[in-house]
Amino acid sequence: MSSLATELADYEAKRKELISKDRSLRLDVLDQDKLSALEIEADRLIRNIRAAEAKSVWSADYPSIPHPFPGMEFLTGRSIIVQTEVFKILCKMPKGALLHAHLDATVNASFLYDLGLQEPSIHIQVPQVINAQTLSTALPKFRALPAELHNNEAVSLTSPSYVPDSWISLAHAREQFDPALGGPDGFDQWVLSCLTINPAEAYGTHNTVTKIWQKFTSTFRVADGLIHYAPIFTKYIREFIRSSIEDGILYVEPRVNFWIKYVTMVNADGVENVTHRELLMIFESVLEEILADLKAQGREDEFVGAKIIYSTLRFLEPDELDWYFEDCIALKKEFPHLIAGFDLVGDENVLYPLSHYTEKLLNFRHMQKDAGVDIPFILHAGETLGDDSKADMNLYDAILLGTKRIGHGFSLVKHPEVMNICREKNIALEVCPISNEILRLTSSMPMHPLPILLNYGIAVALCSDDPSVFGNMGLSFDFFQVLVSSEVTGLIQLGAMARDSIKVR
Amino acid sequence: MSSLATELADYEAKRKELISKDRSLRLDVLDQDKLSALEIEADRLIRNIRAAEAKSVWSADYPSIPHPFPGMEFLTGRSIIVQTEVFKILCKMPKGALLHAHLDATVNASFLYDLGLQEPSIHIQVPQVINAQTLSTALPKFRALPAELHNNEAVSLTSPSYVPDSWISLAHAREQFDPALGGPDGFDQWVLSCLTINPAEAYGTHNTVTKIWQKFTSTFRVADGLIHYAPIFTKYIREFIRSSIEDGILYVEPRVNFWIKYVTMVNADGVENVTHRELLMIFESVLEEILADLKAQGREDEFVGAKIIYSTLRFLEPDELDWYFEDCIALKKEFPHLIAGFDLVGDENVLYPLSHYTEKLLNFRHMQKDAGVDIPFILHAGETLGDDSKADMNLYDAILLGTKRIGHGFSLVKHPEVMNICREKNIALEVCPISNEILRLTSSMPMHPLPILLNYGIAVALCSDDPSVFGNMGLSFDFFQVLVSSEVTGLIQLGAMARDSIKVR
Repeated sequence: MSSLATELADYEAKRKELISKDRSLRLDVLDQDKLSALEIEADRLIRNIRAAEAKSVWSADYPSIPHPFPGMEFLTGRSIIVQTEVFKILCKMPKGALLHAHLDATVNASFLYDLGLQEPSIHIQVPQVINAQTLSTALPKFRALPAELHNNEAVSLTSPSYVPDSWISLAHAREQFDPALGGPDGFDQWVLSCLTINPAEAYGTHNTVTKIWQKFTSTFRVADGLIHYAPIFTKYIREFIRSSIEDGILYVEPRVNFWIKYVTMVNADGVENVTHRELLMIFESVLEEILADLKAQGREDEFVGAKIIYSTLRFLEPDELDWYFEDCIALKKEFPHLIAGFDLVGDENVLYPLSHYTEKLLNFRHMQKDAGVDIPFILHAGETLGDDSKADMNLYDAILLGTKRIGHGFSLVKHPEVMNICREKNIALEVCPISNEILRLTSSMPMHPLPILLNYGIAVALCSDDPSVFGNMGLSFDFFQVLVSSEVTGLIQLGAMARDSIKVR
Repeated sequence: MSSLATELADYEAKRKELISKDRSLRLDVLDQDKLSALEIEADRLIRNIRAAEAKSVWSADYPSIPHPFPGMEFLTGRSIIVQTEVFKILCKMPKGALLHAHLDATVNASFLYDLGLQEPSIHIQVPQVINAQTLSTALPKFRALPAELHNNEAVSLTSPSYVPDSWISLAHAREQFDPALGGPDGFDQWVLSCLTINPAEAYGTHNTVTKIWQKFTSTFRVADGLIHYAPIFTKYIREFIRSSIEDGILYVEPRVNFWIKYVTMVNADGVENVTHRELLMIFESVLEEILADLKAQGREDEFVGAKIIYSTLRFLEPDELDWYFEDCIALKKEFPHLIAGFDLVGDENVLYPLSHYTEKLLNFRHMQKDAGVDIPFILHAGETLGDDSKADMNLYDAILLGTKRIGHGFSLVKHPEVMNICREKNIALEVCPISNEILRLTSSMPMHPLPILLNYGIAVALCSDDPSVFGNMGLSFDFFQVLVSSEVTGLIQLGAMARDSIKVR
């Protein structure tokens, strides 16, 4: 060999070594030797289909989608995604555990609305008469009323004589909706638009983190009265678990919000008296029914169970937490198999930081010890674009408080030492790609920091966060967005993430 | 103290320690002890003004700007930025060295166009008649013609009888421009729109990396014939350096494209015969004139000099590089004080990767050694959203080839080992915040990976890249976008970056 040829060979060897070292922290690298020939072949096939569809599907012209590309804005690209072979294959893939989802946003909005329509007790109110001007801003409120308060007689929500905030039965309100606003169909569209985020909102009128959060939280206020009616809630839980299983999810661990003392929903008789423990009993009975059903069908390997993360909100004052701590401990004692952890939720950029609650949260540990229970913190932290902002600083507190996993941790990549700790202690990140994009932390998946986390050896569980609001039901959509945005990630890497999600639950 | 109080005190101590350790790699941390009281006070003042303007300026309503926020899309937010006190202060700040700018995009587009208008030799051609339909797509070409080819008689570019690709004098074309298209004013607007990127293009019609690069490269084709006319070029260099000094820049190191053999521009007589070495002679004479001027005014501490990075393009075949290597070595021998390094430029996502040239680039090292010169590689790499794409892989090759700095390195944050190497070997990144945003690698500054780089201890030089196209003349705009997007970054941290830029030149 000439000296240049030797040099070149040496260069190529060093290059291979550098790339290998650069990727040596990745968790999926560790298992590479154990891969079967079938796994390698499946991975290769999907990569080929992805490459073919990058041209055939994503380079095509779509009249209503000006800039299609793999990993694009989900709400705009969704109609293309569902056409792809890659998506159809991913729907059949086992996804592991769903570790980050807010229970109140886990069931398809149309399904929930239909449940409401089937219940004569469900009533609706609006703060002002609905007309062409108020249609896009007035938010409905739902509630199951006791029989004596049922109202099928009132004037339509669209009548000038409608008394603001008066209750009308849902079915009646739908029937009487002004034909000029689309009649019943227009009513359906309006309600659904209040339960979900549409592309114009995410990418147009609400195109900043602050503004989209206003729309986002409004969807919870609207859904609340539908979900928190015991007869609906039972069906709601059943649908959440059923649809998760259908999407290949093996285990779910939703966060459940407890932020009103004692009660959590309206009973079948229209009275708001269902307690926190009764909510858990409903959850448990539906879960047991589903597990029994699966067993009867010989499908018990498709789903291993569910727990909840007891959550309350970051707008509470520290002293107010004590009641919820005691409540949580009591529930853990009664349902040790159902309570997986504790969290404080809500927009980190706006509400109190974890550091506001340090003393209380440290004391909660002692309360648990005294009660003989262990309820790990599983804390939201770093769901922000801020650098050194209070939401970003939450990462330090989540780590110091001993969080079991981190909810989101979007800004973690900025923190070398916190990254080290997460890697060394195997503190997994619950990464919600589509949520992050719609809530404007990233503009598309190729801009998402996920590859950084993976290359630094952080355990990642892909999660859907609030699929009813975003339309990313199950985990297939999030898996899809991740797969098409990186040449590193193939089926093998997705599989490793799915397995990791089970290990870190 | 109660045991909880002790625990809390211990927690706070650990928290302080964790934050300090998390930031211990930052280069600006090292100098924190050396700060003067005045520096600390100046930093505090700017932080206060920034906080006040986040409310007063950025929370105000602007009829044409729906989502104002600090660090927002530059082309839309520019009119707000220039109103702020923070910007006015940053204009006066010493910025250190400008290490990444393409010479052909360093002078305000209006200034360049005015230089063209002053030259009777400058002619214009278009590939089709300009009318309301073709106005937004037809690109003009400019060129200085010899006296015998001057043409002040031809029909207007907007006349149906205009012969496509025929040359008309610029002044004549301007005067005769169809009044229905705005006459001379409409002509001015049209030419400037072809030299720059407007918000509608960056954030609307060309809102992906691929599409905006098409617009971006077209601006260079348009500007080319204006810049590369020796009488204009002399004034162009003067304006580039003069405006840089005015903005507080101490040293410039533009990349100069040599991609046609032998010649590089049109001479005063209209003949294309100015050689590469003659270009450098013009550059040198303007530089010396400016340095002498500054000295005469007692301002020699405001500017220490300029060099160029010899660049050619990544669409050349490997064998074609040999000519440019020899040319570069010859120039380095004649102008050792002017040639700072060598680079290959062009869209990394589309053109050849560095690995396509490995053998040639290794051989270039030997050629240099034989010639007794040292021309460091200063390579573009990782200017991409790709993960394991050829542009992303360029980072491995840039490092293995011993690059002195990295141009952009936008995707570096995904590569733990390459980050380590950059930190250990002090390989600085030439980070171009506004360029990255307009070319759609990030949607706004809060989404930019810069804080990750800084927290991992990577040396960063902030740069403007192509200010004539983006409108970010000088470095004040890029410094501004960085300052308002992070609570970590204050005047002290910006100052550290400015000082680093001088160290790594």
